[in-house]
Amino acid sequence: MIKTAVLHAAGYVGRSLLDAILAHPDLELVLATSRSFSGQPIASAHPTLAGRTKLSFVTSLDDGPQPDLVFVAAGHGQGAAAVAALRGAGFGGLVVDMSADFRLPDAQTYVQRYGKEHPRPDLLAGAWYGMPEITGPPPAGTKLIANPGCFATAISLALYPFSTEGAPAVGTFSVTAMTGASGSGALPKPTTHFPDRDGNMRAYKVFSHQHEAEIDRMAPGVSYQFVPISGPWTAGIWGTAQGVLSTGVGAKEIEELFEACYSDQPFIRLWPGSLPELRWSVGSPFTDLGWIVQDDRLVLGFGIDNLMKGAASQAIQNANLALGWDITRGLIP
Amino acid sequence: MIKTAVLHAAGYVGRSLLDAILAHPDLELVLATSRSFSGQPIASAHPTLAGRTKLSFVTSLDDGPQPDLVFVAAGHGQGAAAVAALRGAGFGGLVVDMSADFRLPDAQTYVQRYGKEHPRPDLLAGAWYGMPEITGPPPAGTKLIANPGCFATAISLALYPFSTEGAPAVGTFSVTAMTGASGSGALPKPTTHFPDRDGNMRAYKVFSHQHEAEIDRMAPGVSYQFVPISGPWTAGIWGTAQGVLSTGVGAKEIEELFEACYSDQPFIRLWPGSLPELRWSVGSPFTDLGWIVQDDRLVLGFGIDNLMKGAASQAIQNANLALGWDITRGLIP
Amino acid sequence: MIKTAVLHAAGYVGRSLLDAILAHPDLELVLATSRSFSGQPIASAHPTLAGRTKLSFVTSLDDGPQPDLVFVAAGHGQGAAAVAALRGAGFGGLVVDMSADFRLPDAQTYVQRYGKEHPRPDLLAGAWYGMPEITGPPPAGTKLIANPGCFATAISLALYPFSTEGAPAVGTFSVTAMTGASGSGALPKPTTHFPDRDGNMRAYKVFSHQHEAEIDRMAPGVSYQFVPISGPWTAGIWGTAQGVLSTGVGAKEIEELFEACYSDQPFIRLWPGSLPELRWSVGSPFTDLGWIVQDDRLVLGFGIDNLMKGAASQAIQNANLALGWDITRGLIP
Amino acid sequence: MIKTAVLHAAGYVGRSLLDAILAHPDLELVLATSRSFSGQPIASAHPTLAGRTKLSFVTSLDDGPQPDLVFVAAGHGQGAAAVAALRGAGFGGLVVDMSADFRLPDAQTYVQRYGKEHPRPDLLAGAWYGMPEITGPPPAGTKLIANPGCFATAISLALYPFSTEGAPAVGTFSVTAMTGASGSGALPKPTTHFPDRDGNMRAYKVFSHQHEAEIDRMAPGVSYQFVPISGPWTAGIWGTAQGVLSTGVGAKEIEELFEACYSDQPFIRLWPGSLPELRWSVGSPFTDLGWIVQDDRLVLGFGIDNLMKGAASQAIQNANLALGWDITRGLIP
Repeated sequence: MIKTAVLHAAGYVGRSLLDAILAHPDLELVLATSRSFSGQPIASAHPTLAGRTKLSFVTSLDDGPQPDLVFVAAGHGQGAAAVAALRGAGFGGLVVDMSADFRLPDAQTYVQRYGKEHPRPDLLAGAWYGMPEITGPPPAGTKLIANPGCFATAISLALYPFSTEGAPAVGTFSVTAMTGASGSGALPKPTTHFPDRDGNMRAYKVFSHQHEAEIDRMAPGVSYQFVPISGPWTAGIWGTAQGVLSTGVGAKEIEELFEACYSDQPFIRLWPGSLPELRWSVGSPFTDLGWIVQDDRLVLGFGIDNLMKGAASQAIQNANLALGWDITRGLIP
Repeated sequence: MIKTAVLHAAGYVGRSLLDAILAHPDLELVLATSRSFSGQPIASAHPTLAGRTKLSFVTSLDDGPQPDLVFVAAGHGQGAAAVAALRGAGFGGLVVDMSADFRLPDAQTYVQRYGKEHPRPDLLAGAWYGMPEITGPPPAGTKLIANPGCFATAISLALYPFSTEGAPAVGTFSVTAMTGASGSGALPKPTTHFPDRDGNMRAYKVFSHQHEAEIDRMAPGVSYQFVPISGPWTAGIWGTAQGVLSTGVGAKEIEELFEACYSDQPFIRLWPGSLPELRWSVGSPFTDLGWIVQDDRLVLGFGIDNLMKGAASQAIQNANLALGWDITRGLIP
Repeated sequence: MIKTAVLHAAGYVGRSLLDAILAHPDLELVLATSRSFSGQPIASAHPTLAGRTKLSFVTSLDDGPQPDLVFVAAGHGQGAAAVAALRGAGFGGLVVDMSADFRLPDAQTYVQRYGKEHPRPDLLAGAWYGMPEITGPPPAGTKLIANPGCFATAISLALYPFSTEGAPAVGTFSVTAMTGASGSGALPKPTTHFPDRDGNMRAYKVFSHQHEAEIDRMAPGVSYQFVPISGPWTAGIWGTAQGVLSTGVGAKEIEELFEACYSDQPFIRLWPGSLPELRWSVGSPFTDLGWIVQDDRLVLGFGIDNLMKGAASQAIQNANLALGWDITRGLIP
Repeated sequence: MIKTAVLHAAGYVGRSLLDAILAHPDLELVLATSRSFSGQPIASAHPTLAGRTKLSFVTSLDDGPQPDLVFVAAGHGQGAAAVAALRGAGFGGLVVDMSADFRLPDAQTYVQRYGKEHPRPDLLAGAWYGMPEITGPPPAGTKLIANPGCFATAISLALYPFSTEGAPAVGTFSVTAMTGASGSGALPKPTTHFPDRDGNMRAYKVFSHQHEAEIDRMAPGVSYQFVPISGPWTAGIWGTAQGVLSTGVGAKEIEELFEACYSDQPFIRLWPGSLPELRWSVGSPFTDLGWIVQDDRLVLGFGIDNLMKGAASQAIQNANLALGWDITRGLIP
């Protein structure tokens, strides 16, 4: 059993990680931190986890057994500080960071996308950006894994095949992707105020979402424009990418392209000739990808659970691979 | 045309009032105030009202034409201050206050229910609590009307018949009443955070909701216990009141009781032998009341739109009556 | 007062029409038909209309006062039969048909889009397709108006400006448009089954929605591909149309284009530099249109209430114009 | 590994059972039947299960490996026929029936509650009604387990303590319990039509729900009246039971009562002094029970997932016990 800790575990990403760790046969949850809930049972922040653990939140890593593996579920800009503190305290084991802080390859891109200086550019070089179906497993010796963003995961997995050698050319993809309100975190915001979200659709950060930098890493050379949208549901990301195909490319070529990229991936489900529905992947670690071709028109459809494949289950995939285990361990199936 | 102003008009109650005034053939909206939106078009806070008025918010009553009628849509504790300021500025016309500040008959009850001193007890004596189907029209010369609370309106209208002379005795009513998220106002709160409200039900202020003081005024002598609940919808209050009937009382007696109280009321719809559904009254000024009797078991059902009969349309009813007009004027039907 | 009837009035379009007629100062509802509800009060099918009319449904036009104006709210394929029956019975007044049966200019297009023969091609020649902001008022003497489809209305109003003379060229618009469940009508269907619609998004009729034929009429020459989507809400259509601009075209040109087309239209609200939200138009007769331009990227956003501008309020606009009245009469504002 | 089959597996209860079996370390799914989907992959009816099994639906038990354990997920009235057919075909192993057909102790009660003759009264004697926290494990040799109804489970677990010896007396409980739309099954119905369920609350079968017969078995002697309600969500049952306490009974006595009944139960979570929220148990096998006492007023709150504790996870609990395993096997925790 690998002793496992979650830092800043009182939010939604923290909850999903705690849930996944408690269900994993080879991970043992030994510690969870939260400043607001320190000293209180985990169920005080996460009533859904009542009956599954007797642990209480603590303030820091010193307040419990020394872990082998640490997940950091802090907000953007705070992940780097937490990782730096871990290293400063002498923790030398594997860290999976859920924030955006180590996702971009260099400090300049970070400034462009997040509008502020990177808090610890010195740590960037040692970080591995892990989207397993594209990047594969981390190199031996990896000690810091940056877990991808939720929109970035869904859109990258949809567009990545078009960045592979010999892929059919598509002009510019028009991407619309919609997220549930849990993507905004556990703290109330105007954009998650029920009367303004229920029965509503709202575009935001049009053509300028910060996850584009990650998509550019995972699907280099693919042209797209992206309209992010807030939708009236809690869990899941769903969207479409429309494009115009070159002459001679049809449904058969698209299917071959996706099969070549993903047929061996246990967490990717392909739906040729149709678009998956949002609910199919909600609550699961799967990514659903489908497509429809008609004459020169192409539309891709994609769906993930933003807190699973878009956060916790992808983090478990990454940890499994770093630990030399099968990618599916502790995850259904 | 009666020149009409709305103070503190940037919230949901303000929006419903502005909407109702713009639709009223004999009221002319001349002024709306908001500290946050001062100088900006009304549509900046209320996009649904774009295309219906060219007014912009101003800071105070001095920034526009002198009104004949003022609605005050400030929060609880601020209504009294706003009314006091109006009087201090010399405004002598009719004021309808939407806050809780003038709903209770004396300052002591206010302290008990709201846990703080009443800001202006000297103004209480002049206030008329107006729930027209129970209280009738305000006395001639009334200059300050306290508009009832939303839960108070729904539950009082359901229980009031049992406080009338000769009404059948029912032991203690078990009331459950559920409100949509717009009842919490326009500012985000933990209880209106979409991921925690969507698909959820949550009881709060069990047996101690402050609206009980209003119900006690409108249905004196009726015994009840009240469990307030937050529901996963935006608009509307819905609930049930269960009780046990005395021997010899059946469906016929209950129907006669409600008919005697409400058959002449244009905004009360009776549904003998069934319970109304929540959506029936949403978006309308109606109150739906129904009941089912089986042997000695009784259940009443009630529904209102919390921003209409629970706020704006009841305020228009009150203003219509104070102005000597028909209660339905400007309201459908 | 114009005596007005609604045929096949027990569905959602019927309900919205009855509501609009009851609120119209110059229309008098004299008759409503329904086979299923014949003999029962209108509130038996539409509890929201209780307290607003004492009429009961009847079986046919012969069962009440002779109307001057008839709205036909039958389903697709049944509208033509109902209109034919009206004419056969000698009714010579104005008919507004809500079905798809008279929306297409010729019987061949109808076969292509609806997969069956047109039931009464002889009646097509006399029908006027009325989308007032594009088509203007019907010619004098018009006796049959085809009211547009809901998706067709929203998308046509967004794309129409690009079909006008001198409009900037945009390659192919990628349109995604999403509808609430009320667009599927009042009868339960698998696609409106709550557990499969709640928290879900589902594409359907991809690249082949029948409303494309109407869009082709209203925005001729504009290239687009359209992905229709079912969303988890009751009322409203919302969507985006993305395109790539030619060199030299920017936000200023797009604004001028939309201003030139719509600045005089009381029911069109323009939102330059932003995309409207879905809820802004829900419950209202307005169409919201916005846009964002960044470099050569363009996205249009559009929103309507599918039962108002997408059905009943547009029908009232059409009737107002045919009767020589102001387009806004009986509609807010 | 116990070879396991699910009959009539294309509905929601079937889906939850398949999911639970696929996640159970000691159960092996070998067969699933469906008339409508026979020959098609399980994912054709249940896309959420894509990637988790390669099985296709078959028509009958003869079309696959002989199972050791069979779950029957047929509708009410069809469960008995399916069980009879199983026995007729010589299957002698354990059957867990999800329908209502074997839940009542005798054929007369069945007629009263379901309004029709019991299809196979001869099989009733051999059936064990299993609500493990109340009934304990089935007797050795049990071959047929009737799995309880969803409302029956939630309300029985809340009221059962008051039927135990020495429990405080409460007059008549007023129960309101609300269910999500998945409780109505996978086939569209007027009551699950999205536009009529979204943002709506609707009471039905007031004082006459068929699950009362099960509650009467599990909480004999407890007086209650029950208002069932349809709520605007997909998963979960939530409700309250209000009562008036005798003199001398307070929060301490209620807590002792619930602790005495349930403190050893791994799937019951007690929340003294508060009412649980609906979402806490959704997606889990837990039952949440809480209470608030103020003077002589008592309210109990309860929540379960109707497809888990109200169906599939309770069935797994029952099967685990019948197989001599720990009640939690294959279920979190």
